Amino acid sequence: MAELRRDPVVGRWVIVDTDHPRKPEDFEYEQHIAEGGLCPFCYGNEFMTPPEISCFRDPGTKANTPGWQVRVVANKFPALQIEGELDRRGIGIYDMSNGIGAHEVLIETPYHNKDIPELLLQEIEDYLKMCCLRAADLKKDKRFKFIMIFRNYGAPAGASLEHPHTQLIALPMAPKNALEEIHGARDYYNYRERCIFCDIIRQELYDKARMILENKYFISFCPFVSRFPFEIMIMPKQHSGYFCHISGDEIRALAQILKETLAKLKKVFVNLSYNYIIHSAPINGESDVEYYHWHMEIMPKLTQLAGFEWGTGFYLDQTSPELAAQYLKAV
Amino acid sequence: MAELRRDPVVGRWVIVDTDHPRKPEDFEYEQHIAEGGLCPFCYGNEFMTPPEISCFRDPGTKANTPGWQVRVVANKFPALQIEGELDRRGIGIYDMSNGIGAHEVLIETPYHNKDIPELLLQEIEDYLKMCCLRAADLKKDKRFKFIMIFRNYGAPAGASLEHPHTQLIALPMAPKNALEEIHGARDYYNYRERCIFCDIIRQELYDKARMILENKYFISFCPFVSRFPFEIMIMPKQHSGYFCHISGDEIRALAQILKETLAKLKKVFVNLSYNYIIHSAPINGESDVEYYHWHMEIMPKLTQLAGFEWGTGFYLDQTSPELAAQYLKAV
Repeated sequence: MAELRRDPVVGRWVIVDTDHPRKPEDFEYEQHIAEGGLCPFCYGNEFMTPPEISCFRDPGTKANTPGWQVRVVANKFPALQIEGELDRRGIGIYDMSNGIGAHEVLIETPYHNKDIPELLLQEIEDYLKMCCLRAADLKKDKRFKFIMIFRNYGAPAGASLEHPHTQLIALPMAPKNALEEIHGARDYYNYRERCIFCDIIRQELYDKARMILENKYFISFCPFVSRFPFEIMIMPKQHSGYFCHISGDEIRALAQILKETLAKLKKVFVNLSYNYIIHSAPINGESDVEYYHWHMEIMPKLTQLAGFEWGTGFYLDQTSPELAAQYLKAV
Repeated sequence: MAELRRDPVVGRWVIVDTDHPRKPEDFEYEQHIAEGGLCPFCYGNEFMTPPEISCFRDPGTKANTPGWQVRVVANKFPALQIEGELDRRGIGIYDMSNGIGAHEVLIETPYHNKDIPELLLQEIEDYLKMCCLRAADLKKDKRFKFIMIFRNYGAPAGASLEHPHTQLIALPMAPKNALEEIHGARDYYNYRERCIFCDIIRQELYDKARMILENKYFISFCPFVSRFPFEIMIMPKQHSGYFCHISGDEIRALAQILKETLAKLKKVFVNLSYNYIIHSAPINGESDVEYYHWHMEIMPKLTQLAGFEWGTGFYLDQTSPELAAQYLKAV
C-alpha cells in the first residue's frame, strides 16, 4: 500500500508510492545539452549585459572585459527594481505595493558548457563565496526582508540562457513558502526547545536509509517527505539561520558536497536539468531566528506537474526517497 | 514599475509585470491536438477500464458496454486505495499513515475529440451532475476529510490520456493548500464577520476590470492576484461551502459559464492545454464552514515554471489580470 507522509516543518502531506516504485530508467525526461552560439555571459560579450556589480577577476583586467572568474550583473529584465518607495496601499479588499527589490545574475564561470560537477573545487568555492557576499551586501538595505538565491539549470528547468548562472532576488517581504517554514520551525521550537532541522539531521544520520553524502560540515540526503522523485536536501550540521553567515571552511565543504552530490545525480540521469534554491532566514526583522536553519534544496526536472499538485499542494512521489538514495549512493 | 500584489485569502505575494505586459501572441506554448488511436475511454473499449462505479446511460444498455453519456470508473493506477485502515503513526520525528483514499476517473463524454466548449449544454450539465453525485457519495465515508475534483486537459497539462476526463480523489486529510485557504477565510471572517469570497465577488462586480462573464448564479473573472497569465476563477454568487450542495439551476448556470469561459480562453489560445480544480470545504469535520465559499480555478498551461516559483511560492505574472480579462472579453 502507498504511504502518506507528513512534512514535519510545513505539514504538507505527500503520497509515496511504495507499491510501484519508479526506477531511474522509467523516467522520460527532456535532456539538456548546451548548444553554444552567441552568449551574453561568455568572455568578450560583457558589453551585452548591464555593467558588473561585483566580480572576481585577474589582477590588472578591467571591469566589463574578460579575465573574470565569477561575475555579477543586474538582471537585464528585472522582476523588481531597486529605486523607489514601496508605498504599500489597499485597493478595496486587496493589498499591493510597488515592485521594489533587487534582481541580480551571478555568472558562475566563464565556461559556457561546464556545470558544477565539471568545475574545480576552487571555482565552485569562488562562486559560493560570491553568492554569500552579494547576500550580505543586499542585507544592508533595510527595505529588503528576504533574499532568495536560486539556480535554474537547463531549459527544461526554466533557464532562459544556457550559460550556467544563478539568480539572486531581494524582496521587500518574505514569500509565503518561507514564512510557512519559519512558522513551522518556530512552533516546533516553542514545543520542544530544539531546532527541527537539527533533529532532522540527527535522525537522517541515525536512519541512514536516505543519506547520500556527508563531510565535516554538511550532509546531503533525500528528504523523508520528498515532493519529487530524487529530490535532495543539503544541510549544514552547524546550526545557523543565515546562509551568508557561512565560514570559509564551510564554504569549501559546501563546494565539495554540492559538486559530488550533483555529479551523482547526473550520473543517474544523463544531461539532467534541475533547480536548486538556498533557503535562508528572513532579514532585517527579528535580530536572530534561533529556530531556523538554512539549507539547500535540489529539485531534478524529471516529471511534469499537473493541476492536482498546483491546486492542492498535495504531491505524489513515485520513487521513495529511500530508493532514490540507494541509487545515488551506488553510483 | 511592476506591482506587488498580495492574495487576500492566503497571503501570497505575486509580482505583476505592468511595464512589459505579455500579450497572447507572445506566448510559445505546446499545442494539444488529440491524435486518436486505441483509447480505453472510447465506446467499445469499456473492458479496458476497471468496472464502472456509476454511469448515466441509455435505458436498456448494460453496464460496461457502450450507450453511456458519463461514466465513472476506479483509476487503474490509483494513488490511494479504498480498503484498509489509516493507521497514523510516527517514525522518529516524522509522521505517516497508510495510503487510504479513493481515486476515480469521470469520463466526461463518449467523444474522444470534444473538449467542453464543443459539448452541448446538456452534456456538460450531466458531467457536472455526476461530479456532484460522486462527491456526495464519497462524503458518506467518514474516513475521508477532503474531496478534490480536478481536470488535466491535454498532455502539456499533465493528462496521461487524450480522451477528456476528470479525476476525483478522496483524502483522509485536507491538503495543505486547502487548509491555507480555509484558515485565511476564517481569519477574515473572524475579523469582519463576512465571507471573503463574497467580498471578492462584490469587488469584482464593482471594479469590472477583471470580469469575463456573469450569469444569474456565477461570475468568471481573472483574479487580482493571478499566479499565472490568463488564470481564471469561476465563483457561485450564492454563498456555499460545498460544491456538492449545488442546486439543479446552479448546475445549469455553471455548465453555461464554464462552456463559454473555456470557449473564450481557447479562442485566444488555439489548442490550449489547461487544468481546473474545484475548491470545496473539507468534509466530515466541523458541521458547517460558513466562512468558506467553493469555487473553480482554471489554469492555462502557457508558461513553464522554474525553481523560483516552486521554492518560494512567489510568482511572476507577466500578463496583468486586467489585460487578460480585456482579451477574454473581446473574443
